[in-house]
Amino acid sequence: QWTLLDWKPRRPDMLADAFGLGKIVQDGLVFKQNFSIRSYEIGADRTASIETLMNHLQETALNHVRSAGLMGDGFGATPEMSKRNLIWVVTKMRVLIEHYPSWGDVVEVDTWVGPTGKNGMRRDWHVRDHRTGQTILRATSVWVMMNKNTRKLSKVPEEVRAEIGPYFVERAAIVDEDSRKLPKLDEDTTDYIKKGLTPRWSDLDVNQHVNNVKYIGWILESAPISFLENHELASMSLEYRRECGRDSVLQSLTAVSNDLTDGLPEAGIECQHLLQLECGTELVKGRTEWRPKHSLALRNMGPTPGGSA
Amino acid sequence: QWTLLDWKPRRPDMLADAFGLGKIVQDGLVFKQNFSIRSYEIGADRTASIETLMNHLQETALNHVRSAGLMGDGFGATPEMSKRNLIWVVTKMRVLIEHYPSWGDVVEVDTWVGPTGKNGMRRDWHVRDHRTGQTILRATSVWVMMNKNTRKLSKVPEEVRAEIGPYFVERAAIVDEDSRKLPKLDEDTTDYIKKGLTPRWSDLDVNQHVNNVKYIGWILESAPISFLENHELASMSLEYRRECGRDSVLQSLTAVSNDLTDGLPEAGIECQHLLQLECGTELVKGRTEWRPKHSLALRNMGPTPGGSA
Repeated sequence: QWTLLDWKPRRPDMLADAFGLGKIVQDGLVFKQNFSIRSYEIGADRTASIETLMNHLQETALNHVRSAGLMGDGFGATPEMSKRNLIWVVTKMRVLIEHYPSWGDVVEVDTWVGPTGKNGMRRDWHVRDHRTGQTILRATSVWVMMNKNTRKLSKVPEEVRAEIGPYFVERAAIVDEDSRKLPKLDEDTTDYIKKGLTPRWSDLDVNQHVNNVKYIGWILESAPISFLENHELASMSLEYRRECGRDSVLQSLTAVSNDLTDGLPEAGIECQHLLQLECGTELVKGRTEWRPKHSLALRNMGPTPGGSA
Repeated sequence: QWTLLDWKPRRPDMLADAFGLGKIVQDGLVFKQNFSIRSYEIGADRTASIETLMNHLQETALNHVRSAGLMGDGFGATPEMSKRNLIWVVTKMRVLIEHYPSWGDVVEVDTWVGPTGKNGMRRDWHVRDHRTGQTILRATSVWVMMNKNTRKLSKVPEEVRAEIGPYFVERAAIVDEDSRKLPKLDEDTTDYIKKGLTPRWSDLDVNQHVNNVKYIGWILESAPISFLENHELASMSLEYRRECGRDSVLQSLTAVSNDLTDGLPEAGIECQHLLQLECGTELVKGRTEWRPKHSLALRNMGPTPGGSA
């Protein structure tokens, strides 16, 4: 059952050295991997996009499972999960971004897992600049098990708990958990809406489902470019409700609230988001916080469009 | 003038070892860099997407320029080009893909440059599987110089020729140059059309223009998913005519011709493509060839939707 993903760790010692595939550190409880930010991972700001940073989180999570010898026949499923047709699905994700890395920077990702609730697993990340040690982002997420065939959620079987339990760490990456409920958005109350979003063939993962990271791109598509041009994402809380299939047609809604504004031009902006099917079925709800851009790179480029919204 | 891209080659020896940033080989004429295929670079087929492979070509081209000590203040422009506000723009690209790598595979990219015509530079690539040496793809491209401010094409100044000339190699990556003219497509004769394509903020590069690789994604968007599901791209010839801005609205046209069909079920399919503005201005013309999918990974997954189109 190890062949389906076609993962071939040939000469693993050499690969790990030459290509930075990561390794388990801290008594086997934390997985660490470095990434060099590539030219195609940066945007108009010359810094890494949020999708790039989220991709690095996904890659380290999978490599952690693989390095622990727990990769079954799915994308991060353990052997005991594979026997039972169970897969991991994410239900919550919270990310705090302090600093966006630039082309050529090397980021160092730490990731570890822990218990949450009765049937969940928490996965946390702490990303730093490899050279300076400066924090780039901290993130936490909640995962539950789903039967691949029935698409119903499942309890954690004892045999799976025995596989993953020894890796659990209690330390949390984010302490100030944002417990505010995400409000309901609809077409009448939203500020921006983008309709007719459809998955492209290249958006589908090996399960023919849309990758978690793609949803983040869709959520940001309803925000106007002028807003994205002048602000950078500071934090994001997402609740994944339902998955979307390859033939789904989606709508992305964004409402801007100025709760964070304190009268200063430096004040941040808060947005509420909803990604839904055209029939109204909710897929992802979210809240984001934004701060005005003042990157060194932009200042070096001369005058920038003035101020924040 | 070296600061604009914020490239900081700190401790370059260490970075090159740990993160595979590549190096110049063969008497300084060929640049070589390895890439490990990451989980988020593969699609529903479990193999790298064409966009991923094209991104690796872009990254090696830029790292080649940087390694040669010729990086001015733009994306691959030399110091003498930067003085004159000149940038490189691609006019032609031809790619032959023999084999798509999988997650965890390491690909080895060789790239070099050469002369073409009076005012062009050719850039070629040969990508192999690092372990087996098997060819993954071969590609060739033509680049010319454009004034960043007037957007007019420019001759190659003598000072720039002196910078880049010593790196020129005559060897071509692709011998069987496809010299057939790309026919004119229009809305009435095309088989598939996708309208209303717009750049996302994250599609813009540091020049606020859409990256070359993004155009390839748009071109493939007009092909139906059922086609992409059963065929893999075997070759691609593109002519870049005009650039698109951040507020452009595009249309992607695809026509399927069966010139390659020889009655066998294994026969490939040829498509013609046009990416244009809504007003009809041509941006990119292209021709692609496709072969039925028979990857090992798919066979391992059990029965697949039958046959080829």
